[in-house]
Amino acid sequence: MNINEIAELAGVSRATVSRYLNNGYISEEKRAAVKKVIDETGFVPSSHAQTLRTKKTKLIGVILPKINSESISRMVAGISGVLSEQGYNLLLANTENDEKKELEFLQLFQDNRVDGIILIGTIFTGEHKKLLKSLRVPVVIAGQHLEGYSSVYHDDEAAAEAVTELMIRAGGQHFGMIGATLRDEAVGRKRRAGFLNSLEKAGITVEESALKEAKFNSESGYKMARQLMENHPETDSLFCATDTIAVGAIEYLRETGKKIPDDIQIIGFGDSKIARVLTPRLTTVHLAYKTSGEESARMILELLAGKNTADREMKLGYRIVEGESLR
Amino acid sequence: MNINEIAELAGVSRATVSRYLNNGYISEEKRAAVKKVIDETGFVPSSHAQTLRTKKTKLIGVILPKINSESISRMVAGISGVLSEQGYNLLLANTENDEKKELEFLQLFQDNRVDGIILIGTIFTGEHKKLLKSLRVPVVIAGQHLEGYSSVYHDDEAAAEAVTELMIRAGGQHFGMIGATLRDEAVGRKRRAGFLNSLEKAGITVEESALKEAKFNSESGYKMARQLMENHPETDSLFCATDTIAVGAIEYLRETGKKIPDDIQIIGFGDSKIARVLTPRLTTVHLAYKTSGEESARMILELLAGKNTADREMKLGYRIVEGESLR
Repeated sequence: MNINEIAELAGVSRATVSRYLNNGYISEEKRAAVKKVIDETGFVPSSHAQTLRTKKTKLIGVILPKINSESISRMVAGISGVLSEQGYNLLLANTENDEKKELEFLQLFQDNRVDGIILIGTIFTGEHKKLLKSLRVPVVIAGQHLEGYSSVYHDDEAAAEAVTELMIRAGGQHFGMIGATLRDEAVGRKRRAGFLNSLEKAGITVEESALKEAKFNSESGYKMARQLMENHPETDSLFCATDTIAVGAIEYLRETGKKIPDDIQIIGFGDSKIARVLTPRLTTVHLAYKTSGEESARMILELLAGKNTADREMKLGYRIVEGESLR
Repeated sequence: MNINEIAELAGVSRATVSRYLNNGYISEEKRAAVKKVIDETGFVPSSHAQTLRTKKTKLIGVILPKINSESISRMVAGISGVLSEQGYNLLLANTENDEKKELEFLQLFQDNRVDGIILIGTIFTGEHKKLLKSLRVPVVIAGQHLEGYSSVYHDDEAAAEAVTELMIRAGGQHFGMIGATLRDEAVGRKRRAGFLNSLEKAGITVEESALKEAKFNSESGYKMARQLMENHPETDSLFCATDTIAVGAIEYLRETGKKIPDDIQIIGFGDSKIARVLTPRLTTVHLAYKTSGEESARMILELLAGKNTADREMKLGYRIVEGESLR
């Protein structure tokens, strides 16, 4: 059943049916005729066709790097809470850490499917910047800072400095790090910078070969811990860029008989559930993921309302969650 | 820039541009003229408008109850692997265990936005069944069995029987259960049925008050473990319907000084990462979530190809992962 058929059954023009569906003016008589046909046939107007007319979908697209992640799911909960109050639904696009997919979904979402996009970003290539610049719908970047865009992000560098200082004060002398790719500005570059800043301030040197890089899973954390400990068996303090990486590292350390924290102290990032059930409990950094989701949602609402055309940046704080993995 | 403007610049009709974009027949001369304008202006046809013409979006909608879940993310990985090979992208809709949202997204997706829907189901109300019946796009149900629909699901009952038998053979005498809502056919009803079947076969009785019901999070597992142990301090064998529930129960048992498995043995469901890092490691049930995602994807492809119009049901097996939480 389409608009043409409704028009024919009601004995009116196609334009009349269209005006009826879009609450435009039509005579009482014609309104009654169209309503009767629609009621009898159970016709549901395609929201797709409506979208082309009204240009509003009440949908926000959220592009995210992985779904099985506590930090991401807290951000999505924050976004969803704010937006559903305003009658918006979310469509999620999972890129599985594939930058190409990010570009594909940006393109897909902007082709009128959504009113706005929240990009939980990881890596920004030249192609990203070019595509972002050409977007016809408002976009907010969450979890990363990108010059020239509205964004909500965390103070990864200050947080990394603070936990590293804790390990120094606890008497750490031989430091190692299992970080993330430096192409990830927040998790890779800023956390590493904070770690190195604190060591430098304390006059502690660290060899380049004690700075490892893992993927965002515990298997990779395990592997990198093995590489690190084989090159640097003296390591007594280990900085892991995420809790997930720390879980893998701890598994390796346990298997090789190292005691935590007596032989080696270790910290993670993310304040995940898994950090709390580990024995000993992992000392980790809490970043306000839910808040950053909420703030991103508020920003996109403002952009949709045409307010605040200047790009806004918001940097959020952190909190250290003390576990039992520091001396 | 829209099709009308392209047509004007190229000196051809709107219909010609439309045929060009849809690979219809047009003369070489006109093709060259349109191509030149499109190349020069960088015009990108709206896929939305294309959708209305071709009725194909190459998108599959996946409705899921929560995103921060290992089982769900494994299913999505399976779905995504099979479908992206065929050039499909996924749009995910997160219902946060809200049945109303499930209905909303079914409606939203079917309004021509996607070619097919995979519903990772939980609860089927009358409204669900009515809406499912009226869908104009093919749908596959994953993780649950629903009469009359193509579905891929797990043998929850047999798996629950098997782990319960293990606890009986290990000498369990006083059994308790922290299950899930009975409105969830698979996780709630079938796992409970399997548990009770095995006890009955062994001639072991269990009081109704030792059968608790938790939400799908560890906080609720903690709370229900407390209720159970306060009513039934004699409990020496605890069946948890999910690993997440078991995590909360273990936390409570630890706090009250109970030794696992000496004082109380415990099992979970899901073979999650958290089960493996717990001390002692949790004995749990592995369900082939990734496979069920892959099979759901294959079913939807067959439905899209117009093959196999008869509804197909596929029941997948299980495997017990032995930890250290059984005697």
